[in-house]
Amino acid sequence: MISDPVAHISLPEGLPGITSGFAFRPETAKPMRELAEVLLRGANTLTSAEREMIATLVSDRNDCHFCQASHRAAAAHHLGGTYEVVDAVKRDFQSAPVSPKLKALMAIAVKVQESGRQVHTSDIERARAAGASDTEIHDAVLIAAAFCMFNRYVDGLATLTPRDEGLYDQMGQRMARDGYARRDTDATHRTP
Amino acid sequence: MISDPVAHISLPEGLPGITSGFAFRPETAKPMRELAEVLLRGANTLTSAEREMIATLVSDRNDCHFCQASHRAAAAHHLGGTYEVVDAVKRDFQSAPVSPKLKALMAIAVKVQESGRQVHTSDIERARAAGASDTEIHDAVLIAAAFCMFNRYVDGLATLTPRDEGLYDQMGQRMARDGYARRDTDATHRTP
Repeated sequence: MISDPVAHISLPEGLPGITSGFAFRPETAKPMRELAEVLLRGANTLTSAEREMIATLVSDRNDCHFCQASHRAAAAHHLGGTYEVVDAVKRDFQSAPVSPKLKALMAIAVKVQESGRQVHTSDIERARAAGASDTEIHDAVLIAAAFCMFNRYVDGLATLTPRDEGLYDQMGQRMARDGYARRDTDATHRTP
Repeated sequence: MISDPVAHISLPEGLPGITSGFAFRPETAKPMRELAEVLLRGANTLTSAEREMIATLVSDRNDCHFCQASHRAAAAHHLGGTYEVVDAVKRDFQSAPVSPKLKALMAIAVKVQESGRQVHTSDIERARAAGASDTEIHDAVLIAAAFCMFNRYVDGLATLTPRDEGLYDQMGQRMARDGYARRDTDATHRTP
């Protein structure tokens, strides 16, 4: 599923995935990075591992290899470096070793991935019955919606998708440790 | 197509569409508002009317009435208050009275609405041949991707969708005049 096309526009060379779009257009990178930071690492009753697993699941459903592989690695590093749980979520989140609350939030997220209109009252009731708060439901919806943006941005520009899976492990480690704030690579590469 | 459900979570009452989500969660509202401001109103060789029409087209394809109707009205107000052009775009952008360049960018946007992976080299070549710059192509991709987020956020929470079309005209007028910066309604309504 990993293609290796030339990017659709003249993105800065050598930067993988979304980081090349961010370097190309720092004005849009800033709010996109901020949104990822708040959603995945901000103060929350959901752990960062749980939120990264929702991001991974949605990215996988959108068939975005770069986002799926990098957020899978970030989730794993939030869990001490083990991929077992996040891979079980990718295979079948309903049977994965995660809490009933997280399963219910993931069920909402995969509906949002298709369309916001797919989310029904019964999905919300199931999440509430499993102990989810309104903010947790809100954030599950918005994480899923935001990755429908990030995934389309990455693939719609045909950004560089590394084939070396070890690179994603390193990326995920950095993402889990340092987060999504502005990088030096968000530079003045922009072409008019 | 306009349903009138109760919102899925306890959103502040009386606020339409995305504004209720923004009021509920100011931390995520801030970067989302900033992204909309840069994409739709920031310095750009595409006019705000052109960018609002791309946003309207994508929202319409995602069947998000609130976003479609409000951005349609914003586009109309950028064009002096007439809905003729934006409605022609909604009906069939390929035959609408807009430039060949904008049609080519819209063709990219509707592919991104389905999946970033739908955008092919031939779509980019068509846009370049019509005079589109790399930044214009980038922004068409990202506007489409961002509205795949905004649309899912609005409908995934089952926010209030006004039925009075006159309200959208007023909203669009405000959006065209004042933009998307933080509002007083992004308040401390948040429930834990």
